[in-house]
Amino acid sequence: MAAGKTAWDRLGAHLQETQVMDSITRTLYWDQNTRMPSGGAAWRGEQLALLARQLHARQSSERYAELIAEARQEWRIRCQGVDGPDVSGQARNLDLLEQDLRRQQALDPDLVSALATAKSQGYDLWQQARSASDFPLFAPALRRMVGLRQEQARQLAEPRSCWETLAQPFEPDLTLQRLQELFAPLRSRLPALLEQLKGSPRPTSLSWDLPSSTQQQLCDQLLIDWGRDKAITCVAASPHPFSITLGPRDFRITTRVVAGQPLSCFLATAHEWGHSLYEQGLPTSSHQWFAWPLGQATSMAVHESQSLFWENRVARSQPFSELWWERFAAAGAPLTSSADLWKAMNPMAPGCNRVEADELSYGLHILVRTDLELALLEGGLPVEDLPGEWNRRYQELLGVTPADDAQGCLQDVHWSEGLFGYFPSYLLGHLISAQLSEAMQTAIGSPEEHVRRGDLSVMLGWLRENVHPIGRALNAEQLVEQVSGRSLSSAPFLNYLEAKLERLFSASA
Amino acid sequence: MAAGKTAWDRLGAHLQETQVMDSITRTLYWDQNTRMPSGGAAWRGEQLALLARQLHARQSSERYAELIAEARQEWRIRCQGVDGPDVSGQARNLDLLEQDLRRQQALDPDLVSALATAKSQGYDLWQQARSASDFPLFAPALRRMVGLRQEQARQLAEPRSCWETLAQPFEPDLTLQRLQELFAPLRSRLPALLEQLKGSPRPTSLSWDLPSSTQQQLCDQLLIDWGRDKAITCVAASPHPFSITLGPRDFRITTRVVAGQPLSCFLATAHEWGHSLYEQGLPTSSHQWFAWPLGQATSMAVHESQSLFWENRVARSQPFSELWWERFAAAGAPLTSSADLWKAMNPMAPGCNRVEADELSYGLHILVRTDLELALLEGGLPVEDLPGEWNRRYQELLGVTPADDAQGCLQDVHWSEGLFGYFPSYLLGHLISAQLSEAMQTAIGSPEEHVRRGDLSVMLGWLRENVHPIGRALNAEQLVEQVSGRSLSSAPFLNYLEAKLERLFSASA
Repeated sequence: MAAGKTAWDRLGAHLQETQVMDSITRTLYWDQNTRMPSGGAAWRGEQLALLARQLHARQSSERYAELIAEARQEWRIRCQGVDGPDVSGQARNLDLLEQDLRRQQALDPDLVSALATAKSQGYDLWQQARSASDFPLFAPALRRMVGLRQEQARQLAEPRSCWETLAQPFEPDLTLQRLQELFAPLRSRLPALLEQLKGSPRPTSLSWDLPSSTQQQLCDQLLIDWGRDKAITCVAASPHPFSITLGPRDFRITTRVVAGQPLSCFLATAHEWGHSLYEQGLPTSSHQWFAWPLGQATSMAVHESQSLFWENRVARSQPFSELWWERFAAAGAPLTSSADLWKAMNPMAPGCNRVEADELSYGLHILVRTDLELALLEGGLPVEDLPGEWNRRYQELLGVTPADDAQGCLQDVHWSEGLFGYFPSYLLGHLISAQLSEAMQTAIGSPEEHVRRGDLSVMLGWLRENVHPIGRALNAEQLVEQVSGRSLSSAPFLNYLEAKLERLFSASA
Repeated sequence: MAAGKTAWDRLGAHLQETQVMDSITRTLYWDQNTRMPSGGAAWRGEQLALLARQLHARQSSERYAELIAEARQEWRIRCQGVDGPDVSGQARNLDLLEQDLRRQQALDPDLVSALATAKSQGYDLWQQARSASDFPLFAPALRRMVGLRQEQARQLAEPRSCWETLAQPFEPDLTLQRLQELFAPLRSRLPALLEQLKGSPRPTSLSWDLPSSTQQQLCDQLLIDWGRDKAITCVAASPHPFSITLGPRDFRITTRVVAGQPLSCFLATAHEWGHSLYEQGLPTSSHQWFAWPLGQATSMAVHESQSLFWENRVARSQPFSELWWERFAAAGAPLTSSADLWKAMNPMAPGCNRVEADELSYGLHILVRTDLELALLEGGLPVEDLPGEWNRRYQELLGVTPADDAQGCLQDVHWSEGLFGYFPSYLLGHLISAQLSEAMQTAIGSPEEHVRRGDLSVMLGWLRENVHPIGRALNAEQLVEQVSGRSLSSAPFLNYLEAKLERLFSASA
């Protein structure tokens, strides 16, 4: 097969150019979040809208449809008389491309363009509204975004509800029924655990802080320890930490320093680096590379399971604090033992902020958001009622009320960009991380033991063998089942959490 | 005229989309130079090549040619029976668009794509070669670039020499004969001035330095004093300082801290800010905005005249040192008087580095480069002979020899990206800056007096009235003639320089 000769190769060349365009969009997004002055927002919106139009035209074009059809035809001929499963995954690639094509072709180009513009404007207004804690300033943009996303779901016309349809890009094949089934034990158990902790000696916030430059040095040290290759990675600051891949050898993360929260930047670094490690471990050859579906992350929940693994199972573990507390003390943190650091890493005290939340209350933040976005998209909740509903549910589930909307319903960027159906992935990520960690423990021993020995390479090797290279060959639940031998459930997460709480409180006693 | 109805408006909409695409390219370039890990280079090359192909297709398309022809036709009808000059500049806009179209249509798309790829690869190899001081590593990329640019000039087939053709985008309408005429007095006078200085008490380098963070604070303070608006500007670090405009309200500059040269970053900040002020002052309404030729900078030399004005006439002036020396002293610089700072700002000692050069030797750096790029493009100089020729001419003209190629012919980024015909603009910028400063002095008093009073607003106001808003309505020489009432010459620059040298040496005596 000479390059460019087969239908398969022609399709591959087309997909590569699509990825080039898509990665340009991501580069603009990166710049928007890390460097762009606020005055650049309107023009950036024009740039992103133009690329979105071009990308949509390309991904819904007749030419593209023909390329897929020709590759499918070629594949059928090659497989004639050959029975058996799709070992190479090439048929799966074609299935996923056909699904994506159907979705792109279902959308009106005007809607695609309007969504791109609304995303930029929404992001810009959200930034202004958050810094002024002025929800009414953001409300019209959110209302418009809800309307556009509902229209998108209508145009996609899938046999799914509006919310389910919008959640597909993040969690392929997820149904609302399955989500509620997975979340049900958390809805009852998490508030109960929180209740048990009442009256326990818990710090509501740390009484110390570290200078920004010191925090950055600790973060740099963490990434050196964790094997960061500077030739292919970049770290910057942004209002909201994220991880993004701009090319096959260009992986980036952002973090931020939060005043009064000396571990926030450190844990965000661990978290975003976990995302990046997954991306860095995706398959990179032939039909499984960057440009093809099988070379891409399978779901946001699996992505989150990887970031949470490094944040919670590694950085927040007891042995990690044993290894690191003296470094923190030398940097100026008032710690007298590893237990001090470990407890500071695991406050187990509900607050109003999702990103800063501990493992116990994190799920509650997601349950609030999941309920609210369902209400906005399918339940008729008026946008102007969002702050009130937000605060009511926070009081109910977490027992706290935000001081203002900046710390309440304006804290997250997601809805400003129309990312509905995304938040549940964060909590599913906790479940997946726990279940994969159990499987890892069975195979190579507990993560805690590896951390204690200060050797992370065996764990990373296991992930690089069992999780990262799967790409989109399996969806999230199939991946969990293949690796753990069981269906996904909330049991491993709840078991892990209860054991951790017990150890934390016996350490505090 | 309702929007989108006239041929003029349709052309305007097309030009705006072209600018959106072009500004995406510039955003990728910005990121490449300020953030991108080295591993991202190959993929970035793919992105830039794709955009270059798309942009070239757009700018050479039949559809675009029709839009211009229709707008020209509409303009002719509107002007029927109306005599007189092109007051609004709309005919000039059409002339420039037609010229650009002819050039775009003359180029083979494969060449455009090859040039974009060669530019990325050349930049990447130049970075590697410079850090290893390994010219042979870079030579093949430079050889390829020379060949591609020669091919470009052949395809453009203008009644100009190869070098002249390539210089047109930087200096519209410039001829080699006129350039040599302007440079001739400098070729004889600058080495003579240098000779006179021999034996004078001159520091070859400063014996003190300032920490990077201190330098950055001084630069921040400078830009605050000079009226930086953070909502529309951004400052970052890059290996080679530059200024770039990413959108109508998104202006960026970069600087760098050079070890052992505590004023380098400060002067680079002044310089790049001068570029940015010109961009910020370009006309922004109707047919003179961002998307139209008349809303764009007229030439690189005029651009450079604006950066040099703020660097040399303001920051390197005696009164500036009087205002600033105590700030530098407070920041840790071992200065005991304003004269100490002024002399440090003006070493008047030839070195090997162009960017760090003083006003006297700067021109000599450019004469070397001008001669060498003429030799490479038109004189048959083999690329492998470049380091030897470079060093020979430096010894001859400046009396110095670089320690290695990193400090010699690898010091500048320009040739790696194929920017031949660009260097002379830097020296023309000195001439234009001096001649415009004379005109400014006649109109509102000497720049030094304004600096002494600590009020820069009158000078900026004069530039904003007489220079910035012209855009491409006039070419560089026409602009100088309109503002100063005389043809461009090297006399104002040489007069200024000799007077400054005299003052500097009487201050040192």
